[in-house]
Amino acid sequence: MDINTVNSLSYEDFVQVFGNVVEKCPLISAAVWSRRPFTGLSDIEANIAEFIDSLPRSGQEGILRCHPDLAGKDLQSGTLTRESNEEQSQAGMTALDSVEISRMRHLNSEYKKRFGFPFVICARMNDKEAILRQLSERLTNERETELERAIDEVKKICRLRLYNLVLSDTQNKL
Amino acid sequence: MDINTVNSLSYEDFVQVFGNVVEKCPLISAAVWSRRPFTGLSDIEANIAEFIDSLPRSGQEGILRCHPDLAGKDLQSGTLTRESNEEQSQAGMTALDSVEISRMRHLNSEYKKRFGFPFVICARMNDKEAILRQLSERLTNERETELERAIDEVKKICRLRLYNLVLSDTQNKL
Repeated sequence: MDINTVNSLSYEDFVQVFGNVVEKCPLISAAVWSRRPFTGLSDIEANIAEFIDSLPRSGQEGILRCHPDLAGKDLQSGTLTRESNEEQSQAGMTALDSVEISRMRHLNSEYKKRFGFPFVICARMNDKEAILRQLSERLTNERETELERAIDEVKKICRLRLYNLVLSDTQNKL
Repeated sequence: MDINTVNSLSYEDFVQVFGNVVEKCPLISAAVWSRRPFTGLSDIEANIAEFIDSLPRSGQEGILRCHPDLAGKDLQSGTLTRESNEEQSQAGMTALDSVEISRMRHLNSEYKKRFGFPFVICARMNDKEAILRQLSERLTNERETELERAIDEVKKICRLRLYNLVLSDTQNKL
């Protein structure tokens, strides 16, 4: 899909294609459609990041709260979004042993209790050891620092989802 | 469900219950969870309205773009959310004759071409005649006026969805 094709999409088609680049937040891609025409993929990405940064703090927390736990009940019950399912599988979340599962559950629960949102990390850029280590480390962050850090991870996830969607077309010219 | 029960919900349960009070925008209820404790249902409603008002204009347009057309293809294909389906049925959108359907399609299409978002109206507070009349009238509004008007309708829909969720419990004390 080249950038001219993206720029020619109706809002309905745009949201259909890009609606989940930020997990369960179609509002964000639907908002960013207002900023067409885009000069390229990195311009869409920059507009999404800018929109996220423009939200009040509660809105950024809201974005995080739309994310599933890693190796949590959505993975178990098969109710993850397609994108999350691929990312969690790729990061080894479907292949944890019982000790790792119980450690992950305990840390996720501590994290949510401390921050009021779930631990978000770009799973594609990490393996299970790195995820467990960072979960454990980030648990000790100050709230403000951790909100910023988690939002940075949302942006990384978004970038990879965007590139995956657009560059999976071999004819792309972006 | 009384307000103490609502205030004691985890963000996961809160988003599970209230995630669609603004159509396909769980981000909004997830954000508003940060504002607990609520003093009552109207306080939740006020916090949602305040959050919507705090969004940049593109974000408000984004909210509208997450809404389905009235009597559109989602109704036809059975892919409306439960709430939208109830509302559209109640407003007679499932009982349009062929002339009304074609008039609705034509006006919806003109509206989307003019404003870049779909016509949103609180269907529960209108019947099919009123909907067609208002669609036709609002089509002539200035863009800025119409964005404000449509966001007011989002807030009305939200209020009725909220009350429906909380007051459907006969034990409610709100």
